[in-house]
Amino acid sequence: MKHIVLVAFDRFTDIDLFLAWDLFSRVAADECRVQIVANSPRITSSTGIAIDCHGTLATAREADAVYFCSGQGSRALADDPAFVKTMRLDESRQVLAAIDSGAILLGALGHLRGRRATTYPSPDLHERLIASGATPVEESLVVDGNVATAAQCLAGVELVRWVLSKLFGQEMADATIATAAPLASKRS
Amino acid sequence: MKHIVLVAFDRFTDIDLFLAWDLFSRVAADECRVQIVANSPRITSSTGIAIDCHGTLATAREADAVYFCSGQGSRALADDPAFVKTMRLDESRQVLAAIDSGAILLGALGHLRGRRATTYPSPDLHERLIASGATPVEESLVVDGNVATAAQCLAGVELVRWVLSKLFGQEMADATIATAAPLASKRS
Repeated sequence: MKHIVLVAFDRFTDIDLFLAWDLFSRVAADECRVQIVANSPRITSSTGIAIDCHGTLATAREADAVYFCSGQGSRALADDPAFVKTMRLDESRQVLAAIDSGAILLGALGHLRGRRATTYPSPDLHERLIASGATPVEESLVVDGNVATAAQCLAGVELVRWVLSKLFGQEMADATIATAAPLASKRS
Repeated sequence: MKHIVLVAFDRFTDIDLFLAWDLFSRVAADECRVQIVANSPRITSSTGIAIDCHGTLATAREADAVYFCSGQGSRALADDPAFVKTMRLDESRQVLAAIDSGAILLGALGHLRGRRATTYPSPDLHERLIASGATPVEESLVVDGNVATAAQCLAGVELVRWVLSKLFGQEMADATIATAAPLASKRS
């Protein structure tokens, strides 16, 4: 049984959370537990979608994989000393992934030091990555050991595929993503 | 000012609603109003995400575009006489789109009669399309005048692009989708 935790926050970007949540939730319930956590029991996206979370940030410490979402609110969370104090992740045994501005959360926790990393192409995010010791690059997916970053919402599909491949193998990851991939034409 | 209504229901599929919601919401607020409607003020996805809706199904009658979401609950809605009675859409002036099993909702309302249409590749959905006078085809996007269907969640990106192109033109549609498309590598 694997455990995947999605880290979210107020003013998250809908696609960044729900795309990954839905894809991870397609794994059979007896093989994978998926939870959305935040530093508040209820969070609201930047477009106004309010949802209840499934646990606290500390839950992430017990997960096999931690997936950091993106959105305007990532800056406030990255600057919150309680966030850094609470998370204490272990990249030697945990798979860590971040989409878009979620990368600055990985950076704030020290997991991007000396690494290449990608994020949403915004100057403030690049500055934050550099401050955390990372080298920002403009690529859709950057993998380094147990840590990966991806840039722009729809790259979340490949980031989810990578997380699933680390936890369950490539075949299962591909089969899961295939359930959502645009239907191929039988005419072509 | 354009008005886009997303039709959802209990047991919706997260990606099918939130992908389109987020992409449509990227259009400037003074150019486009976007609403999620259902036959209940609060709905829950098949994975347990509960959200408040923005209006009733009747709201769709006033929209410039109506986008039908997908999910297990689409069958119950398609079989609900109140749904058919309430919707009364006008494809001569409204853009109508459906992702996956949302196609059977368009079918129940009579908008797929004599048309080719695509849906999630499930026998029960194909049977329902045929019963509504449509010809099911296995393609990712099928456009016929003001009516379009798309198959498998991530084809929602192209369906949203098509809706935006009908309302605002191709250039604006492409620019909106580009904000979410995976970042192209500057190295390649």
